[in-house]
Amino acid sequence: MIEYRNLRIALLGAGSVGSQVARLLLEQGDELASRVGAGLELIGIAVRDVDAPRDADLPKHLFTTDARTLIQSADVVIELMGGIEPAREYILLAINSGADVVTGNKALLATHGPELFDAAEQVGAQLYYEAAAGGAIPIIRPLRDSLAGDRVRRVMGIVNGTTNFILDRMDTEGDTLEAALATATALGYAEADPTADIEGYDAAQKAAILASLAFHTAVPVEAVHREGITGITAAQVEAAQRTGYVVKLLAICERLTDPATGVEGVVVRVHPALISRLHPLAAVHGAKNAVFVQAEAAGDLMFYGAGAGGLETASAVLGDLVSAARRHVAGGPGVGESTHANLPVLSIGSVTTRYQITLTVTDKPGVLAQVAGLFSEHGVSVEAVQQTVASAVPGLTAGAAQHGDDRSSIVQLTATLVIVTHEAPEAALAATVAAVSSNDAVVRVEAVLRVEGDTP
Amino acid sequence: MIEYRNLRIALLGAGSVGSQVARLLLEQGDELASRVGAGLELIGIAVRDVDAPRDADLPKHLFTTDARTLIQSADVVIELMGGIEPAREYILLAINSGADVVTGNKALLATHGPELFDAAEQVGAQLYYEAAAGGAIPIIRPLRDSLAGDRVRRVMGIVNGTTNFILDRMDTEGDTLEAALATATALGYAEADPTADIEGYDAAQKAAILASLAFHTAVPVEAVHREGITGITAAQVEAAQRTGYVVKLLAICERLTDPATGVEGVVVRVHPALISRLHPLAAVHGAKNAVFVQAEAAGDLMFYGAGAGGLETASAVLGDLVSAARRHVAGGPGVGESTHANLPVLSIGSVTTRYQITLTVTDKPGVLAQVAGLFSEHGVSVEAVQQTVASAVPGLTAGAAQHGDDRSSIVQLTATLVIVTHEAPEAALAATVAAVSSNDAVVRVEAVLRVEGDTP
Repeated sequence: MIEYRNLRIALLGAGSVGSQVARLLLEQGDELASRVGAGLELIGIAVRDVDAPRDADLPKHLFTTDARTLIQSADVVIELMGGIEPAREYILLAINSGADVVTGNKALLATHGPELFDAAEQVGAQLYYEAAAGGAIPIIRPLRDSLAGDRVRRVMGIVNGTTNFILDRMDTEGDTLEAALATATALGYAEADPTADIEGYDAAQKAAILASLAFHTAVPVEAVHREGITGITAAQVEAAQRTGYVVKLLAICERLTDPATGVEGVVVRVHPALISRLHPLAAVHGAKNAVFVQAEAAGDLMFYGAGAGGLETASAVLGDLVSAARRHVAGGPGVGESTHANLPVLSIGSVTTRYQITLTVTDKPGVLAQVAGLFSEHGVSVEAVQQTVASAVPGLTAGAAQHGDDRSSIVQLTATLVIVTHEAPEAALAATVAAVSSNDAVVRVEAVLRVEGDTP
Repeated sequence: MIEYRNLRIALLGAGSVGSQVARLLLEQGDELASRVGAGLELIGIAVRDVDAPRDADLPKHLFTTDARTLIQSADVVIELMGGIEPAREYILLAINSGADVVTGNKALLATHGPELFDAAEQVGAQLYYEAAAGGAIPIIRPLRDSLAGDRVRRVMGIVNGTTNFILDRMDTEGDTLEAALATATALGYAEADPTADIEGYDAAQKAAILASLAFHTAVPVEAVHREGITGITAAQVEAAQRTGYVVKLLAICERLTDPATGVEGVVVRVHPALISRLHPLAAVHGAKNAVFVQAEAAGDLMFYGAGAGGLETASAVLGDLVSAARRHVAGGPGVGESTHANLPVLSIGSVTTRYQITLTVTDKPGVLAQVAGLFSEHGVSVEAVQQTVASAVPGLTAGAAQHGDDRSSIVQLTATLVIVTHEAPEAALAATVAAVSSNDAVVRVEAVLRVEGDTP
């Protein structure tokens, strides 16, 4: 065992993750010390309100509202306050005071990552952030170190537990989106204002972090194409089931060559998508998260676990703390940013993928041929068409509706067409859908969903 | 970019993994160099026969039969020859010549690990071995670094692709063990002599490595309880299906307290077991591998990917090479052994688990009560019993058979009892099964299988 003085640990924030980190540090400090070769002393916890209620019973004397003084006497600063300011200012202060930093702040990293990593590099400090992408799931070290000798082609993640819980309920219980969201809120999986989760903002932040890491390229969150799950209906989920798919909100980071320009770059997108029920990501249920990685040599890998939760995320924070502490004892590199590849970040227009388009059409001879012709005209190749038995429902053709007919008085025979395309560019698909929806034989475009992942 | 001289890399062995490592090093050396901050120069490949055919087209001038000279001029030695000797001697020579070592040699680590790690520690060299457990799956760094602030309770792995392929075929195609093994051999998933795989020796070596890492305790392979899959029948697999389970060969590493002695320690075992079809490990198909980890804070995690294959395993080797090279450039600790916890290694007798026992019994009133009485007498609590409709089959009671009756002349009504127990000690279960099998009402004990994993 190497002899070493105690390392001074400062904690910023005592919310659900922070209070668990503090509790574990106090309760299991000896065990951690034996793994590090140095004692780990929690010297203080900076909070806004010293008297606020906490998830864990922590000694009062550790709390302070003076974050700046605390930071300046620490060897390692753990930032778990969240938000942009003052977290950003405090992390810069820690770096410039010679401390290493552990953070779980995905919003900050996704917006100000390069600034923080630059500041750290200038003074030789390290910034650890395993908890910022994937909660408890170890994904940073595998991407950064284990796959350092490989080339990652694609990362597909279920990185938001709230939306996965909702979509899983819709799939397994037949719930509507509203009912599933209500259950998620009641069980504590969704916040009072669920916007950040269901509109994909949280997933987009994690996608930016994962893409930066996987492709050694700084990807700002603004460059992430983002669609939430609010447009997903029970009918779409049920239709997916019938065709052997499941709807998941995916964060997809790809290294590809833009077919139009020939430029190799990175595209990052968050949107609901269909994946085969046989794909490993389809087996990720409830609020669990998983990151599926495709690398040139390693092939398909998947990392699965709890994407959130105070105790679970504390595990990732303490793993980083041990790494930071070992580095203080033994020296060496941390898990900081790597942007040497510096690939261009391309728009979603560069992506080609498969689509499933569900249409309600009038049940007349020749409609299928007419619709298929529209796909062909726009250069989108059709892989499979499924036409269900016609049924009598009230409705209008989309074309007729534009001419002001009385909606309620007409009952006509309709059929449902489910069309799966071969790989097609986003732009061609959008033009096809526009043409299809203004065709007189088409009553409604029920759903347009991307199909992701190889069918195993 | 840090200025640094080229690092000299020596490769020992050019089999399926070694030839891919050499090819990738030569083809992607510049990209790897940019990740390391130093050039990586493959200075030679030591083989027994310079003219043997290889999987990749490699420059002839790199090959040599003089491993010792090659090793002594290297900064990093990659050992991919397999076997105990001369791999052990060469690794010790590398360590004592001041080189770091990357190895994928699970047999060597599982038997001589402590000797090699001690030798490395004495001179400050590092030994990297991501490829030795789980092939391409990044599991060493997650266990060693990401979970360094947590306490692992249990590791359950599907760590042998051959047996998983065979059991998956039996489950999905209804194959017999023999037919599935023949398919595995034809497809190259099984070797000509499949003993090491189907008898669990390969899995036991990986289990010893995973347990050592997860519990910071040296676990020799001799301490691993090992049972292969040769006793698994198509009928057992089908019966498992009916009850919502699937049969998998599991490597289970547990930290537990022996109920008899109160001693806390580690138990490591490899055997076929039933797991719920809803468990994440049940979705691991074909020759894929996965390691399911339960940690106190992080909860359930799973790491999934290719457990074997030349190219896939080369990814893990090159990841280790980049780590070793970075350490040469920037200093710091490697991924060496950690045995500070040094827990006692207990026998499988310390384990309590659930069991599923399938019996063919004579269809007479009172048999169920009689069998249930035997479980109760031995202190094994029954969770559920399922009795199928009686059918007329030729057979004898086990008791009658012992008395020498003519086997073929008797036809009697039998029933099948499937009994699932609550958690029970191994010893109590063994005594129960002995008592049950010698009972006159019991025709045959069809299967005794452990049931592992919580039902999600």
